[in-house]
Amino acid sequence: MIFVADNLHIVNPVVEQAILHRDPGPIRDLVTRCVAAGAQAIDINPGPLKKDPEAAMTFLVNTVATATDLPLLLDTTNAAALAAGLAACKNPVIINGFSLEPRKIETILPLAKRFDADIVGFLLDERSRVPVDVADCLEVAGRLLAAAEKAGVNPARLIIDPVIAPLMWENGVRHNRAVVEVIRMLPDLFGLPVRAIAGLSNLTTGPGPKEKKRTAEVAFLAMLADAGLSLALVNIFHHRTVDSGAASEHLLRSDIFSWEGV
Amino acid sequence: MIFVADNLHIVNPVVEQAILHRDPGPIRDLVTRCVAAGAQAIDINPGPLKKDPEAAMTFLVNTVATATDLPLLLDTTNAAALAAGLAACKNPVIINGFSLEPRKIETILPLAKRFDADIVGFLLDERSRVPVDVADCLEVAGRLLAAAEKAGVNPARLIIDPVIAPLMWENGVRHNRAVVEVIRMLPDLFGLPVRAIAGLSNLTTGPGPKEKKRTAEVAFLAMLADAGLSLALVNIFHHRTVDSGAASEHLLRSDIFSWEGV
Repeated sequence: MIFVADNLHIVNPVVEQAILHRDPGPIRDLVTRCVAAGAQAIDINPGPLKKDPEAAMTFLVNTVATATDLPLLLDTTNAAALAAGLAACKNPVIINGFSLEPRKIETILPLAKRFDADIVGFLLDERSRVPVDVADCLEVAGRLLAAAEKAGVNPARLIIDPVIAPLMWENGVRHNRAVVEVIRMLPDLFGLPVRAIAGLSNLTTGPGPKEKKRTAEVAFLAMLADAGLSLALVNIFHHRTVDSGAASEHLLRSDIFSWEGV
Repeated sequence: MIFVADNLHIVNPVVEQAILHRDPGPIRDLVTRCVAAGAQAIDINPGPLKKDPEAAMTFLVNTVATATDLPLLLDTTNAAALAAGLAACKNPVIINGFSLEPRKIETILPLAKRFDADIVGFLLDERSRVPVDVADCLEVAGRLLAAAEKAGVNPARLIIDPVIAPLMWENGVRHNRAVVEVIRMLPDLFGLPVRAIAGLSNLTTGPGPKEKKRTAEVAFLAMLADAGLSLALVNIFHHRTVDSGAASEHLLRSDIFSWEGV
């Protein structure tokens, strides 16, 4: 399991201001702290980038590259920004991502072929709604795969994001149960070892006591790891979550156990 | 998932002395603290009880009953002690447990029928060795079930313990992977919603840093909960482990989510 930091996000005012003023310092500092905290990839989420999307994403990709050569996930719905970021990016790169929404199939999915990049497919229907149960999720997964193949994207490039729901949502618990099951079933469904990514911070969106939120993150990440999650998009500064995720990996995969790895 | 406290154990010198001197106070205090910490059942493990086994187990069962009416697991290999404890016990009771060892099939398993009690069956072979892989575990599970049926014990009374291995053991990680899978597969194998129990403290037996041991417990318990574990035998004073287990349950089963339950 690879830990992807979700911290470089437009909702962080420091990030917002740094993008606005093209100020590399705060971005570089944040990325350096993410790497020190255990990040193995960085998600760059500048929002929809209504103003100068190409210049903003190019600035971000180039700035982050001065701090790390880790893989970058370019996380915006703005296709022009994505194309500019992909063109500028020297780090390994993942497009994050597309869905069955026709606009995304038309404008974002082709970028995976054009730039020979991995791409995340969200398990959402055409209207960006979360399917609640396993069968619905698998049906959407099949359609994402078909769309990728139709666009000439190698299925091995596809990474599925089953979209963790906030626990507070109606049906949130039920959907999140399905998320774990779907991750476990995807390789069989696809007939190849398809990767899955999940954004853990979504789980505890909304009001709630901080300690309990962390405990829920810790427990749910262990379940996701057990189900075979490949990339965990997390607040990398939640060290209990990261420690537990690392321990899960060690419990699941180590050939020769030692406490050093936990 | 029911939390069973493993704290009333002969390796605790307080327990050892209290049994030796038939001193109810320390036992009652310990049980009261276990209940306050979240125990939903109490495992009574007085060791093999070489001296006065019937009197010692009767004393324990009666003493614990003065502190709680929670279910009790009678955890000894001494059949005479078990029979005396089962006769004396007013609390709901579980025999913990039998294995394919011929002596246990002959002397312990029949007690489940005689006292109409739940009984734990350990996934160990005739020589009390841990089978490493899933197929071997399932084969032993089938034989435990057959032994129970032959002894006239209702299969619904059987609780399977796949015996968590210390991580430090050769093949410990590999076996523990199998433990999680076996728990997931048991209901299908048995054709009934057979319960599983697992002793989590085994996981971290041996030298190792305390914090990392707890982190491993927390992560592994979430996986076990996800797999469908019915009873978790834990050190009930490991509050991070218990909190995480409770959160796992809430993530897995709640119909209407609230942070109160986490």
